[in-house]
Amino acid sequence: MSQAGRVVVYGGRGALGSKCISALKAKNFWVGSIDLNENSEADLNIVLEKDSDLMQQETTVLESIKTALSGAKLDAVICVAGGWAGGNAAKDLVKNSDLMWRQSVWSSLISASIAAQHLKEGGVVTLTGAKAALEGTPGMIGYGMAKSAVHHLTKSLAGPKSGLPENSLVVAILPITLDTPMNRKWMPKPTSPPGPPWSSSQSFSLNGLRGKTGRRMEVCCNW
Amino acid sequence: MSQAGRVVVYGGRGALGSKCISALKAKNFWVGSIDLNENSEADLNIVLEKDSDLMQQETTVLESIKTALSGAKLDAVICVAGGWAGGNAAKDLVKNSDLMWRQSVWSSLISASIAAQHLKEGGVVTLTGAKAALEGTPGMIGYGMAKSAVHHLTKSLAGPKSGLPENSLVVAILPITLDTPMNRKWMPKPTSPPGPPWSSSQSFSLNGLRGKTGRRMEVCCNW
Repeated sequence: MSQAGRVVVYGGRGALGSKCISALKAKNFWVGSIDLNENSEADLNIVLEKDSDLMQQETTVLESIKTALSGAKLDAVICVAGGWAGGNAAKDLVKNSDLMWRQSVWSSLISASIAAQHLKEGGVVTLTGAKAALEGTPGMIGYGMAKSAVHHLTKSLAGPKSGLPENSLVVAILPITLDTPMNRKWMPKPTSPPGPPWSSSQSFSLNGLRGKTGRRMEVCCNW
Repeated sequence: MSQAGRVVVYGGRGALGSKCISALKAKNFWVGSIDLNENSEADLNIVLEKDSDLMQQETTVLESIKTALSGAKLDAVICVAGGWAGGNAAKDLVKNSDLMWRQSVWSSLISASIAAQHLKEGGVVTLTGAKAALEGTPGMIGYGMAKSAVHHLTKSLAGPKSGLPENSLVVAILPITLDTPMNRKWMPKPTSPPGPPWSSSQSFSLNGLRGKTGRRMEVCCNW
């Protein structure tokens, strides 16, 4: 069976990323995973040091991908890395905002850099925002700021002369509550009425691979 | 003449900050300045090391202000620190985004922390966003992301249980092009028709000191 294409998944060892990689492998894609730990299903693993700084991470990632691709192009870059921390202005605002920036924005920025250098024309970039960040988030300020920046990055990358290849499709999924083991653990009661499980974002990402020019911000993944 | 009140200006040595401090001193306010250099008009100067990290900066600022106020409260925190860098996804995206985050978001976050600890009830927080960041900014992605995060911070601080004192007013000015010496140097041709000079933001900040509950995002300062 011939290879369907090449995709890089940032956060490939997380709950979402692992599902994406399994789905892509089932469709015969070559898959690169970027995370703090290896994903054994991936064809390429770029394992980052937890405490390395942003520029070091970018250099590591870009060099590894350049070597692995050896001139070939990517069909998609999917960024599903991220994290969550609550807190208002009176509770660890600066510390949590810094953490959220590192977890959600660094990964999105490096994904954009990968796309600028290695995405094929008409390729797809998927970033992960949050529906909550469409409004103010007084009880989780750092999280909202980081996700708001990811939304802005999505809109900017989708604009003219953004530095991405021609006819790229740039989208963000805006989850509400993802159906992950960690969320099941900490929030055991499904919202009512229960929405579709997280797998809707998996379908979304794969459908996105068909490729269309423009930008979409899509809300999904409530449970 | 009795003291009119107490205000902290983040970026007090910059073009905007210096004007704010002059205007506040003329109205007999006690003024604290936070910047990389001293403002000789200020009653308190907190001079930050350029290369210190976010948590160090926060600690330095909060300790200095706590000591200087010695239990007194602030009428306003005005953040006019910031910077600009262009660049799309193919040109220094990661580096410039990191710089913009440090210049615009660190200062805004620490201003919010100051307000959470030392603002009086009904006090005012003014942050500096950018009109451009209301839409995608493909040619200056890092700048737009940082300003977008500042807009989100403004909305969050203005929301319920944000950690700010009761009845705080949280506003952001959303400048287009400020009339500063640096902007005059690099962009010598005024836009047509010329709008009000930057002093409109000075008036705005002072008017804001009257204090109202809620949130406003105001566009000003074209020239």
